[in-house]
Amino acid sequence: MEAASVRIEILNTGTELLLGSTLNTHGHWMGQELLKMGLRVQRQTTVPDGEAIHEAMRESVMRSDALIVTGGLGPTSDDLTREATAEVLGIEMIEDEQAVRTMREFFRARGYAAMPEGNRKQALVPVGADVLPNANGTAPGIYVPPRLGQASACAIFLLPGPPSELRPMFHEEAAPRLRALAGIEDAGEAVELKFVGIGESSFADGIDEDLQAIEGLEFGYCARLGELDLRLIGGNDAITAARDLVAKSFSKQYVSDDGSSLEEVVVREMASRGLKLATAESCTGGLIANRVTNVPGSSAVLTHGFVTYANEAKVGVLGVKEETLAKVGAVSEEVCREMAEGALAASGSDLAIAVTGIAGPGGGSDEKPIGTVFVGLAQKGKETFVLTKCDPRNRLSFKQQVSQLALDLVRRRVVHGE
Amino acid sequence: MEAASVRIEILNTGTELLLGSTLNTHGHWMGQELLKMGLRVQRQTTVPDGEAIHEAMRESVMRSDALIVTGGLGPTSDDLTREATAEVLGIEMIEDEQAVRTMREFFRARGYAAMPEGNRKQALVPVGADVLPNANGTAPGIYVPPRLGQASACAIFLLPGPPSELRPMFHEEAAPRLRALAGIEDAGEAVELKFVGIGESSFADGIDEDLQAIEGLEFGYCARLGELDLRLIGGNDAITAARDLVAKSFSKQYVSDDGSSLEEVVVREMASRGLKLATAESCTGGLIANRVTNVPGSSAVLTHGFVTYANEAKVGVLGVKEETLAKVGAVSEEVCREMAEGALAASGSDLAIAVTGIAGPGGGSDEKPIGTVFVGLAQKGKETFVLTKCDPRNRLSFKQQVSQLALDLVRRRVVHGE
Repeated sequence: MEAASVRIEILNTGTELLLGSTLNTHGHWMGQELLKMGLRVQRQTTVPDGEAIHEAMRESVMRSDALIVTGGLGPTSDDLTREATAEVLGIEMIEDEQAVRTMREFFRARGYAAMPEGNRKQALVPVGADVLPNANGTAPGIYVPPRLGQASACAIFLLPGPPSELRPMFHEEAAPRLRALAGIEDAGEAVELKFVGIGESSFADGIDEDLQAIEGLEFGYCARLGELDLRLIGGNDAITAARDLVAKSFSKQYVSDDGSSLEEVVVREMASRGLKLATAESCTGGLIANRVTNVPGSSAVLTHGFVTYANEAKVGVLGVKEETLAKVGAVSEEVCREMAEGALAASGSDLAIAVTGIAGPGGGSDEKPIGTVFVGLAQKGKETFVLTKCDPRNRLSFKQQVSQLALDLVRRRVVHGE
Repeated sequence: MEAASVRIEILNTGTELLLGSTLNTHGHWMGQELLKMGLRVQRQTTVPDGEAIHEAMRESVMRSDALIVTGGLGPTSDDLTREATAEVLGIEMIEDEQAVRTMREFFRARGYAAMPEGNRKQALVPVGADVLPNANGTAPGIYVPPRLGQASACAIFLLPGPPSELRPMFHEEAAPRLRALAGIEDAGEAVELKFVGIGESSFADGIDEDLQAIEGLEFGYCARLGELDLRLIGGNDAITAARDLVAKSFSKQYVSDDGSSLEEVVVREMASRGLKLATAESCTGGLIANRVTNVPGSSAVLTHGFVTYANEAKVGVLGVKEETLAKVGAVSEEVCREMAEGALAASGSDLAIAVTGIAGPGGGSDEKPIGTVFVGLAQKGKETFVLTKCDPRNRLSFKQQVSQLALDLVRRRVVHGE
């Protein structure tokens, strides 16, 4: 079987996952781990504890080569994954002696006099299945090899729900078996390119068709606020062709191919050049500094952040002129320039970025509607550059969008000298 | 139809959700929102972009009364949700003129000369379906009422993938229709109390048993970073009894019962008293100011935010003494006090909050391990108060946790005079 042709599904069980009490991170985590092996998840399903597991499992085993089930291996009455598996496959269950011994040992090591009898059902296994040891909890996992039951050729992994138990078991027990099933010798090719300053429609009108024409290439977009990720999957040649095509059209907007965020790239590029940054924020209210300082090592880059929300702060801290404020208002090209230059002077940094705008919901006018923003970049020995845009969104999206604009101005100056 | 008997499924589309590039939070968020309405999700499925949507949708509409589909409404070739819906239901598609006008307006407002032609397909709608306006993006949503297609009686909602677009549309367009479908007259009795400064174990050790004894009360906890939400569901009497019980035990830690965040409460309480705030942040790097300025109307409260990441910034901007820094280091009670008092003086505000700590992963020592933090509160005419804590977490969790500590100090001072 070729890796790409192995059909894998994930079935997450647990009522708490559907009521919003617990965020389901299994699919996300396993998707990443499987992709590293060149494998892909074809479908992920979440069902509540209880009978719904049977139905979902019956459907999945008909569609897939391998099914990974999480949760429902505990000792209580709503833990029914083991039983559902045996029933769906038409196999008897048997108590695994080794599993009982291991569980007794688990309780003894934690100072219990004896194993609670309720835990005993955790040692039940469909006949012919493998018990997967669990070093981090009581519930052993189970592996049902393909064609063990008459009902399907699908391989089934039953893994415990808690991430601290699931993840080690996945690595140690499930991954090697999946590799063997898929006949994988090394990992496939998958890359994600991150862009800032272009949207999905720039691709749709530009090179989407050309990408489609590349043989053996699979690609997809994921649009975020002020950011676009392009995912490429395929052979080496296909990916190289796609990269070349994209590089020609969008070289300046390209940010990273290793998952690095815009702020990570800004910190890395500035740190490697020994450059220091200061921020002067009005409408973003500290978001830009916050994003930069989310990056480990950012203390080598960011020296000062000024959140000058009030006009007195702009005047007192950054030296914006009262007369400029009176003449053109706080949301203006002139004030933005004075903020950037003031932050540069006050901090002694190499670069200073300034933003002033109207985040809403209040504060807009006909002349300066909500969404109006000025972003300025000051640098020692260079003329200050100010751009303006109007992007009326809700308050938080506006802040995020403006912080993208600002960080991207810094990136383009540092990386491309723009 | 009774609320509890309405079968709801969620179908998330997007290859990025299965490859682990994007964490799927839709199910979690919608599960919570639906539960507030007394509705429950019976199954959640994730499929990649493309043909798999057809198959999954065909299955879901046969099983459910309402299907909520997310993603795949963009302008590119892999956005196929609209088409899949029309095909599964056997309905023609038609261009919605109002939707085209709205999209043109969206691009015009953002300074584009014209709408890219590729976006035009976003205005295609199955005949007879409702267009759901999208104030935060180009992709309109779609609502297909029950029994519109011959293939099923299921109501279908197509919502955009980005959370900033999906969430408002869910509230404004999907929730009222779901309520109508389920015959729900009002939102039912459900209340969520938010606490800061206590954990789940404070409840478990304290009043959990007493809550269990209240007849007709269903309750649950949701622990977040530095925050605990207690969800109460039941009749008026049960909820009142639970509230009284909780108020007796945790009155100082109680933050809100209307979903208001800690920063919203801080802004509201300070604004109503005409109080002004300044922040001086080292290890949180702007997060506190950012959280405060996420709140509409915060410009009435926050005047100055200082992100003094470098020692020179602490000295130059806040007047921290060089000798204090040399003697006890930047992460110390003394420097924290000088930062808070410096921010108070530089800003002229009524209150100033200061934080200095070690976020990691670098910078820890035996004496001051990673996670060490000092939080100081200065107020005109009062003695400055400094607390210290050590909570070694990863960088982002640490920042969040410290910002909670700081904002809660402000809240307790303003609301309780502590």
